[in-house]
Amino acid sequence: MNIVIVGAGAMGSRVGSALYKNDYHVQLIDDWEEHVEAIQQNGLMVINEKGKEQVYIPAHLPKDCAGEVDLLIILTKSTKTESMMKSCLHLISERTQVLTLQNGLGNIEVLTKYVSKEQLFVGVTTYSAKLSGPGMVEAFGSGKTEIMDVTGQQKEEAERIIQIFNHSAIHAIISENVIKSIWNKVAFNSVMNPLCTLTKSSAGVIGTYCHFYEIIDPILDEIIKVAEVEGIELNKKYITETIIAALNPSMSGSHLSSMYQDIQRGQPTEIEYLNGALLKKGELNQIPMPYNRLLYLLIKMLERGNGQPVLLDKNTVNMSTN
Amino acid sequence: MNIVIVGAGAMGSRVGSALYKNDYHVQLIDDWEEHVEAIQQNGLMVINEKGKEQVYIPAHLPKDCAGEVDLLIILTKSTKTESMMKSCLHLISERTQVLTLQNGLGNIEVLTKYVSKEQLFVGVTTYSAKLSGPGMVEAFGSGKTEIMDVTGQQKEEAERIIQIFNHSAIHAIISENVIKSIWNKVAFNSVMNPLCTLTKSSAGVIGTYCHFYEIIDPILDEIIKVAEVEGIELNKKYITETIIAALNPSMSGSHLSSMYQDIQRGQPTEIEYLNGALLKKGELNQIPMPYNRLLYLLIKMLERGNGQPVLLDKNTVNMSTN
Repeated sequence: MNIVIVGAGAMGSRVGSALYKNDYHVQLIDDWEEHVEAIQQNGLMVINEKGKEQVYIPAHLPKDCAGEVDLLIILTKSTKTESMMKSCLHLISERTQVLTLQNGLGNIEVLTKYVSKEQLFVGVTTYSAKLSGPGMVEAFGSGKTEIMDVTGQQKEEAERIIQIFNHSAIHAIISENVIKSIWNKVAFNSVMNPLCTLTKSSAGVIGTYCHFYEIIDPILDEIIKVAEVEGIELNKKYITETIIAALNPSMSGSHLSSMYQDIQRGQPTEIEYLNGALLKKGELNQIPMPYNRLLYLLIKMLERGNGQPVLLDKNTVNMSTN
Repeated sequence: MNIVIVGAGAMGSRVGSALYKNDYHVQLIDDWEEHVEAIQQNGLMVINEKGKEQVYIPAHLPKDCAGEVDLLIILTKSTKTESMMKSCLHLISERTQVLTLQNGLGNIEVLTKYVSKEQLFVGVTTYSAKLSGPGMVEAFGSGKTEIMDVTGQQKEEAERIIQIFNHSAIHAIISENVIKSIWNKVAFNSVMNPLCTLTKSSAGVIGTYCHFYEIIDPILDEIIKVAEVEGIELNKKYITETIIAALNPSMSGSHLSSMYQDIQRGQPTEIEYLNGALLKKGELNQIPMPYNRLLYLLIKMLERGNGQPVLLDKNTVNMSTN
């Protein structure tokens, strides 16, 4: 069975190297040339609780990879799902199974443009990882991965995928409730990513702000209403507790969010697959979402500036009317 | 008649130097020591359409100024009204007239704690200026200044103040509608200052954003509703046109807002006197203001960071979950 990880970012590198070390035939695909070249030349440096290790996993640009893939695991940013699928079409046959473990809403809709629902599996993971540079991934801590088949008719195949993960020390279970888990993660990310980005704060700093509840509450309320009309019953207390747990500096509380880093790098953020996707569902169902709308519009405006001040005339910076 | 300008920022320096050049007995007071010392040593450098000029106007720290002042013109940031008034109490008698030309809501309330309403005059100006550094002010363009007496019983005194301005080539008129003009300026600043600050954009850049109307409209609608219950009828079209005029790069469109600069300098912004003051009035009148509330809370959070990313653990910066 040959496996290709599409998107060798932090999580793609973590999952790929774990599978590779357990003798699965796995390759990484990414369009970040510097990263791919670093892995090709020196292997992927994996740093975890046990120390550092150089993992000599094959890595390619999409166009350089050939053959028919049995299992494609999608771990690109949601902003790249469409373009990466297009550049991987030559690897996909009717027998290829495709598993998305991406964040956000809307990825399944994009993927079903390229493969049938019978081929499609969807999951969500609480594992995290961090790219420290080209060819270097930090993979600390543990987590849980939920996976299900999209049609409900491919249970056996889903079980086989789960075995691969568990054999590779990535804790995975089959779940009927993956969609709800995805929504939980979307709710979390739609609250915290824009807040951390707009205030340039780590999650932990947001938690020390005395208006913490006042600011997350109304954002969350809107999301829960939209989920409800979509038939998904979210538990506000559960999501709030997940947020509070993430404020802990020893968890992700001391990190700047990936959305902030996207802005700094001049890359598009995942906002369209978080608050943006929620807004569209809200509009369809006439649910007013002022908080999510403003967060969305502000992040869209920030996406223009590469994290630097945007001026029409770079020579004139200082102004004060008082 | 001796006149003291409280707050020798951009506008304080502009107004002060204009009066001084027309032979009024005027002094500047500010608590920014570097600025005061620069003016004491080399005079105030005023740059305008006519060129550069060194104006040898007296400037002091509040504690170094003594005597009884006839006219106190308040041009500090609203955040400093209270502390500057406290440090100027020794200059104020029952005969001192006090004119505020500050931005924002709430300054009159603070000032009436220190002087009677009969002594108080309120105004609003469209002039602008820019401090280019300690002892240096750029005073380009013209404008209009509206002034009125707070009680409606001090018309003659208001006229005398207006004469001082007009003699000094600062266009001023008496107006019954100063409060409405202040609200117009508050509406403008409450929309544009937080937006420019959160998106790190100049006003002009905001204007080039295709969702421009979508973002300013709901913020403005909330402000107009609050103004209405306060008995002030704002004209949405007029304010929108003022905003659009300000997007012009040859106007202030190419500047970063003073709120952004306050954040960068680690100084408190005027948010409490803009969206913050509006929210309080909205709460009293049970007007929901989600857009203004979120802008307010985000700016309050940004005020903690001096424009730099805020982390709990400065060593851990990069995180990406994909």
